[in-house]
Amino acid sequence: MSTYDLILRNADIATAGDRYTADIGVRDGRICAIAQGLDASAAREIDARGRLVTPGGVDGHCHFDQPTSDGSRFADDFLSGTRSAACGGTTTVLPFAAQQKGRSVQEAVDDYHRRAEGKAVIDYAFHLIVADATRDVTQRELPALIEKGYTSFKIYMTYDDLKLDDRQIIEVLATARRHGAMTMIHAENSDCIAWLTEQLLDAGLTAPRYHSSSRPMAVEREATHRAIALAELVDTPILIVHVSGREAVEQIHWARGRGLPIHAETCPQYLFLSAEDLGIDPDDPMHGARCICSPPPRDKANQQFIWNGLSSGLFTIVSSDHAPFNMNGSDGKRVAGDDASFDRIPNGIPGVETRLPLLMSEGVLKGRIDIHRFVELTATNPARLYGLYPRKGTIAVGSDADFVVWDVFPQGQEKLLSNDMLHHDADYTPYEGMRLRAWPGLTVSRGRVVWQDGVFQAEPGSGQFLPCLRPRAPNDGNPLDKWL
Amino acid sequence: MSTYDLILRNADIATAGDRYTADIGVRDGRICAIAQGLDASAAREIDARGRLVTPGGVDGHCHFDQPTSDGSRFADDFLSGTRSAACGGTTTVLPFAAQQKGRSVQEAVDDYHRRAEGKAVIDYAFHLIVADATRDVTQRELPALIEKGYTSFKIYMTYDDLKLDDRQIIEVLATARRHGAMTMIHAENSDCIAWLTEQLLDAGLTAPRYHSSSRPMAVEREATHRAIALAELVDTPILIVHVSGREAVEQIHWARGRGLPIHAETCPQYLFLSAEDLGIDPDDPMHGARCICSPPPRDKANQQFIWNGLSSGLFTIVSSDHAPFNMNGSDGKRVAGDDASFDRIPNGIPGVETRLPLLMSEGVLKGRIDIHRFVELTATNPARLYGLYPRKGTIAVGSDADFVVWDVFPQGQEKLLSNDMLHHDADYTPYEGMRLRAWPGLTVSRGRVVWQDGVFQAEPGSGQFLPCLRPRAPNDGNPLDKWL
Amino acid sequence: MSTYDLILRNADIATAGDRYTADIGVRDGRICAIAQGLDASAAREIDARGRLVTPGGVDGHCHFDQPTSDGSRFADDFLSGTRSAACGGTTTVLPFAAQQKGRSVQEAVDDYHRRAEGKAVIDYAFHLIVADATRDVTQRELPALIEKGYTSFKIYMTYDDLKLDDRQIIEVLATARRHGAMTMIHAENSDCIAWLTEQLLDAGLTAPRYHSSSRPMAVEREATHRAIALAELVDTPILIVHVSGREAVEQIHWARGRGLPIHAETCPQYLFLSAEDLGIDPDDPMHGARCICSPPPRDKANQQFIWNGLSSGLFTIVSSDHAPFNMNGSDGKRVAGDDASFDRIPNGIPGVETRLPLLMSEGVLKGRIDIHRFVELTATNPARLYGLYPRKGTIAVGSDADFVVWDVFPQGQEKLLSNDMLHHDADYTPYEGMRLRAWPGLTVSRGRVVWQDGVFQAEPGSGQFLPCLRPRAPNDGNPLDKWL
Amino acid sequence: MSTYDLILRNADIATAGDRYTADIGVRDGRICAIAQGLDASAAREIDARGRLVTPGGVDGHCHFDQPTSDGSRFADDFLSGTRSAACGGTTTVLPFAAQQKGRSVQEAVDDYHRRAEGKAVIDYAFHLIVADATRDVTQRELPALIEKGYTSFKIYMTYDDLKLDDRQIIEVLATARRHGAMTMIHAENSDCIAWLTEQLLDAGLTAPRYHSSSRPMAVEREATHRAIALAELVDTPILIVHVSGREAVEQIHWARGRGLPIHAETCPQYLFLSAEDLGIDPDDPMHGARCICSPPPRDKANQQFIWNGLSSGLFTIVSSDHAPFNMNGSDGKRVAGDDASFDRIPNGIPGVETRLPLLMSEGVLKGRIDIHRFVELTATNPARLYGLYPRKGTIAVGSDADFVVWDVFPQGQEKLLSNDMLHHDADYTPYEGMRLRAWPGLTVSRGRVVWQDGVFQAEPGSGQFLPCLRPRAPNDGNPLDKWL
Ligand SMILES: [Zn+2]
Ligand SMILES: [Zn+2]
Ligand SMILES: [Zn+2]
Ligand SMILES: [Zn+2]
Ligand SMILES: [Zn+2]
Ligand SMILES: [Zn+2]
Ligand SMILES: [Zn+2]
Ligand SMILES: [Zn+2]
Repeated sequence: MSTYDLILRNADIATAGDRYTADIGVRDGRICAIAQGLDASAAREIDARGRLVTPGGVDGHCHFDQPTSDGSRFADDFLSGTRSAACGGTTTVLPFAAQQKGRSVQEAVDDYHRRAEGKAVIDYAFHLIVADATRDVTQRELPALIEKGYTSFKIYMTYDDLKLDDRQIIEVLATARRHGAMTMIHAENSDCIAWLTEQLLDAGLTAPRYHSSSRPMAVEREATHRAIALAELVDTPILIVHVSGREAVEQIHWARGRGLPIHAETCPQYLFLSAEDLGIDPDDPMHGARCICSPPPRDKANQQFIWNGLSSGLFTIVSSDHAPFNMNGSDGKRVAGDDASFDRIPNGIPGVETRLPLLMSEGVLKGRIDIHRFVELTATNPARLYGLYPRKGTIAVGSDADFVVWDVFPQGQEKLLSNDMLHHDADYTPYEGMRLRAWPGLTVSRGRVVWQDGVFQAEPGSGQFLPCLRPRAPNDGNPLDKWL
Repeated sequence: MSTYDLILRNADIATAGDRYTADIGVRDGRICAIAQGLDASAAREIDARGRLVTPGGVDGHCHFDQPTSDGSRFADDFLSGTRSAACGGTTTVLPFAAQQKGRSVQEAVDDYHRRAEGKAVIDYAFHLIVADATRDVTQRELPALIEKGYTSFKIYMTYDDLKLDDRQIIEVLATARRHGAMTMIHAENSDCIAWLTEQLLDAGLTAPRYHSSSRPMAVEREATHRAIALAELVDTPILIVHVSGREAVEQIHWARGRGLPIHAETCPQYLFLSAEDLGIDPDDPMHGARCICSPPPRDKANQQFIWNGLSSGLFTIVSSDHAPFNMNGSDGKRVAGDDASFDRIPNGIPGVETRLPLLMSEGVLKGRIDIHRFVELTATNPARLYGLYPRKGTIAVGSDADFVVWDVFPQGQEKLLSNDMLHHDADYTPYEGMRLRAWPGLTVSRGRVVWQDGVFQAEPGSGQFLPCLRPRAPNDGNPLDKWL
Repeated sequence: MSTYDLILRNADIATAGDRYTADIGVRDGRICAIAQGLDASAAREIDARGRLVTPGGVDGHCHFDQPTSDGSRFADDFLSGTRSAACGGTTTVLPFAAQQKGRSVQEAVDDYHRRAEGKAVIDYAFHLIVADATRDVTQRELPALIEKGYTSFKIYMTYDDLKLDDRQIIEVLATARRHGAMTMIHAENSDCIAWLTEQLLDAGLTAPRYHSSSRPMAVEREATHRAIALAELVDTPILIVHVSGREAVEQIHWARGRGLPIHAETCPQYLFLSAEDLGIDPDDPMHGARCICSPPPRDKANQQFIWNGLSSGLFTIVSSDHAPFNMNGSDGKRVAGDDASFDRIPNGIPGVETRLPLLMSEGVLKGRIDIHRFVELTATNPARLYGLYPRKGTIAVGSDADFVVWDVFPQGQEKLLSNDMLHHDADYTPYEGMRLRAWPGLTVSRGRVVWQDGVFQAEPGSGQFLPCLRPRAPNDGNPLDKWL
Repeated sequence: MSTYDLILRNADIATAGDRYTADIGVRDGRICAIAQGLDASAAREIDARGRLVTPGGVDGHCHFDQPTSDGSRFADDFLSGTRSAACGGTTTVLPFAAQQKGRSVQEAVDDYHRRAEGKAVIDYAFHLIVADATRDVTQRELPALIEKGYTSFKIYMTYDDLKLDDRQIIEVLATARRHGAMTMIHAENSDCIAWLTEQLLDAGLTAPRYHSSSRPMAVEREATHRAIALAELVDTPILIVHVSGREAVEQIHWARGRGLPIHAETCPQYLFLSAEDLGIDPDDPMHGARCICSPPPRDKANQQFIWNGLSSGLFTIVSSDHAPFNMNGSDGKRVAGDDASFDRIPNGIPGVETRLPLLMSEGVLKGRIDIHRFVELTATNPARLYGLYPRKGTIAVGSDADFVVWDVFPQGQEKLLSNDMLHHDADYTPYEGMRLRAWPGLTVSRGRVVWQDGVFQAEPGSGQFLPCLRPRAPNDGNPLDKWL
């Protein structure tokens, strides 16, 4: 009779493709057997009878302990950030190693390893933010880093210290194509935002809610269209990150219909927040600051379009874009003072812990998406997109034993979400007061129980760095072929 | 140590969601365990080392032994039809029990059971063709039949003896909504076809290739738009069957983008044939008859749009629409004579056996779709759509042991497809001469090896009838809600 | 020195193409000269210095004295109807001669001539409503009537006593193509409306505002798409009448972009009324009845789309669809009683007199459309579309002397519209209380002053019947050509 | 009895809005009377009985004597250029005063006046090319120049010495909005072209036909979308110049449908040339150079879309984009040598003389557009768009006496177009050999006969400079309003 380190019995397993009841046998951190009535013993057995079990979440977009240039500080480092993730059912995170202009990418990678080591409690990989796309970077550094397991880049079309111009974007895309990497694009038109911001400030419209007016949908739509065109030109897949509303969705839809491999990500803020959240408390001008992120949340009709994109298959992934700043204190949202104009308030909101429970509650349990789509969006697809599959993102023989056993609350017995429940170091959650239908009861990471019955129980530094595979084959062919 | 009836060792398993290597343990026709180095013995063990294993195909649309009104005869009955399916890797078929105008649906169901019993070699379920949507049918018969496991209907917008008018379509859709059934719609505008056919015949344009001119894309597009509108009105999902080209795809795309649950099917003929195939042999006027089906194959640009729809996620399923008529003899394509006008040539082409190998060769192995999408389109999604999941359509613990072990031929060593290789009773295949990169080496149905190393080995009648589950929950709510 | 019957001096003339100041010399009802300082005398001279002069309106869609089948009575006959038109600046009307099922079209034409003769005070032509598209009608009657000057047809996709099925529509379109006529289509899906109405009545939702719910946008969009497809098939232009909102506009937009000659009409009710107008007075359940027409007015976002269609060039014409029923009395809106369900309330609203002033006020004077577009939409295009150009629809040498001299009221001195001001026989206007920026000060029809300074002054019967030219060349070619 | 300088008798006059037969009386260069049987005498009378008369063409986009930076020379100066225009029926041209980077716009204006004076034989106005959008230019120079009658700007999204970045474009648009000017945008993505060109040259693909591959449709589509977004942001109209194919048309269509005031221009090269024309003569590698212009001519399907855009109303104007370089000699197309790579061949083709005759022949006389649309596209709309209306662009009382009397050749008696017939100084026409159905028989400019019966007869310098009106009212409002 086989012996395992852990057996999860009678699990109601849901993956991107399947739903069935079985026992899961885990050895050395991996799933070795899935069977009805697994004829084996284990050091530890857990009975999951009647409980839903899904793959541990893969959060393809989150920011921990990232350096800033305005004196602000991210509320979470790799310890509190990954702890928060684990308690919310996520077992893999992909934060960013962000190159600084004038510096090498490798420096950023080294710096990030230092920040993560001894802290991360779940497994992690790094995306590379390419902020200075010199010839040396695109021709030498990136290919070398891809070889070492850094196979995805994020590039920006806005933010002065990060943005690339069209030619630089093309060069990064061409590198991605040649070496089999994946490129994520933050799509907002920088010049438009700058001009609108100037107009708003000139007009004295400085409150947080004008953040929205400074980045209207048209600005995101334009950049989305442009990103698609550049990818079409170079003939390589891209992912548009944090898509916020209808007009951007329509651009991606159009591209997809023509056979272009354009992937799209959305985030909880575009499903659960709206522009109103940037300015609801008339007595507290800073109140809206808590929901400032870019692109900004849109209106309800746009929210509905984002939901449609989840059910229709348009979106490839749902990530948190966790970027936490404290409301209190002087190194968070208030870094430029209590009455700072909207453009001086740090962008970003926390969400790594609430991503899965909110989507399970509002998506699956309200019937907007099915459980397979949930798993696909939150675990399987991000793992595939970034070269972590099949090790991560599913429950299957041979995969890492990363999974979540869910507590589901009956209608009428929902749990109210409050920041007290959460394990990040941010002092608020923008989703305070939402009614939860589900929360992870148990999170297992590589066979280790890291969260159970309300208790977090992993050692700092027990998470491992994951070198990523190439998401697809390198392509040495001539990218011009389609235009000749 | 467990014992099994069958163990498939070292299988390179691909499902809609996963890809991994493991052993599969089968008992009583079901999969009981999936494990690395399954510690068990079995009556029969097969080593699949290094070979791709996918779920047995589910063909959601095929016609066997269906009565006709013009003296023609389907070339395949349930024996030859299911045999052909099995040899091509398909383990579940869903043919149609077709109501005749003025008769009950139950009569058709009884008749079809008689035709299938003692013949079918793999498992089968029935769609109901509703040709006479009387109040009694929609209010009494269909609900009763849904209860008994007939949970999907096909309805027609063309063909004089089958077509429903818009009001009748609405009534069928309302029944489907109320009782949780799925409706398939053949979308072509009947009056347009009739008028165009009359014009063509008046002008002496009678050759097979004018079949195309009598059913242009606009005719399919119009009916597709109308079907979508009716489903939107009634607020219930539908599946548009055999979508042939760009303009219909665009309609579905538009609907999907607005959040409407419109599913779509395409078939091999729209991926591999084109309008040219209806008239390529100038010496043989009947030659084009072999490719007459409705809607007709379109041009190459339309083919590309259908391929795009496979990769983009637009299509839910790929079915064969197997409807075989012999080219020789007087009860097939020539039933109205050797020089019959196009409108008197039976519609339909064989394809139940070639569906999976062609899509594997041209789709997966040429890189147009990935293996997960292949499984989803050909097995998992049809099973889900028609209430056969999770029993059918996947490789998972608890599911029927239906799977295919593939022979894959290296580039340059492709196999030429010829009708000799096939196991249907039709005397031709429209795909004669295509280069195959893969063919099922082994087909297992409920644990029984039915096709191995070129030998078919199942008993007539060994296939079982499958009562279908409701594809989704009945909805008693007011369909008007969205319009108030 | 020339002598004229009438000279209009110093007119600020605006036509579809031009804007200039000149004198207009009229002789025998026609414009003979346009000049600066016209060196001539006239029996009557009018100085228009500083006043805007536009061509007399051509109302391409209005109903006078039309027989009904439910006991109701149109509030206007040809006398009050054309009087109302003239006082509102319209000098040509095109009402309908409506065939009854089982009767010939000629009968309707004869009947309508009787109704118009001795009554009409401005010129008129007839559209033919084809309600029974028999072979005799399409092959013999319509060609003969086209020859006699009845060159446009209206056909219906809804209303039990009027609607044609797709095949009949095709036959009418083929006749129009062959003989150079124009076809107007009322596009709403009959079966959908019938089913929705049944659901609403079953649910006890009978108030006027449910009229809207019984004919949602999707129902109009579907029929619009279908009408376009049929016209595309037959290869002939059509006009979609009374387009009400975004989804129908998008269909026409799409068609136009592909080069299809699809014309579109909208009406004041889709620019100035909205769904709310069907149910604003909670104390008077019948209040909403005053705005019941089909398609129903939509919401504000749809209104905006209709305005966009005026400025973008999408719409070809703006007509009144004047169809007046009294609110008081028992032969108007209340014909089925004071608490009749919405489906038993006569459809239609008055508007022949307010069409031009409202569009001038809200369109031109608020800057939404320019004066040329105003003239094009309300006079030149309808005249062209229906074969009355260049005799009607413009101010040009050789054309009939039909024109309007406008009184324009400064901002802040708008005139409140009230039914008292109007010259129809209906007892209300749905536009009561709107603020008018302009009203015709003078209307001239064939050189006769028919309305001046608030006084109507034409003899009953002084209007002439206008035989229409063919709007375009007959086309004997094969309509199949594009599909071969 | 009045006396006139010129009377044109019995003219079959067609304008944007009208068609009628009348006499035209001209005094002091202006039209004073239009009448049937004009009761007057004149110094000169011309009988136009039975001949079509249209307004003199307004060419809204042509280049004469423009400085270059590569040693090449425009083949036409203001004398040969305007002579060629006049002989082809054009009576007003709008060439460009092109600012050089680092210089003021006023300098360019002064320079251009010097180039035009004493040479131009027909009237002319100047667009301003803004190549250096400094604060001084947008805040001071442009407003001052608008005041003086330079009310339209052209800006470029490509060409190193001309292109503006997005922020600069926004500043120019904001100036246009504030002061009532019109902005023309050359929409192609510069970085994309640079990268593609580099790839092509690296691959040794240097022949003229690769010019096409270096500027594919996607590059124009992207820039078109971006230009629309910037105009939407600033809330001001723009004109997209020289639109070449479907994907750009679709962007404009989409914008127009949403109510955005986006105008579009196309040119003869996109109606009559195709990509094939860039490389048809295998023996002469430079042959394709004659058709090199940007954007490049596309394929036949794109041509059809451009024609659709003419008939559907999408395009506002048709201009020549006359930019002539000689094929022979060393200062034209061969300036970089006989085997120069495509990127070193001057961009542009001649066409100011053939614009009207080709569009009359292929558009009006082949039934693709009607005569009113012809006049609108080639004369009335460009005059309106650029503030020259009503002085130019129509035949109306008070307008300049600019008109064309047409010779129309019966089918079968077409005239073959050859460069010998033309009056420019370029040594070829790309339209050599096309069959002409019409050519101007007489051109009248401000009452002067400048071209008659094959004889050109105007004095150098007899053309006048035209200060332009503001195309619309200045808008001081807050452009942010729509985003708040
Ligand atoms: Zn971002
Ligand atoms: Zn981020
Ligand atoms: Zn079918
Ligand atoms: Zn079928
Ligand atoms: Zn109607
Ligand atoms: Zn009507
Ligand atoms: Zn240009
Ligand atoms: Zn140019």
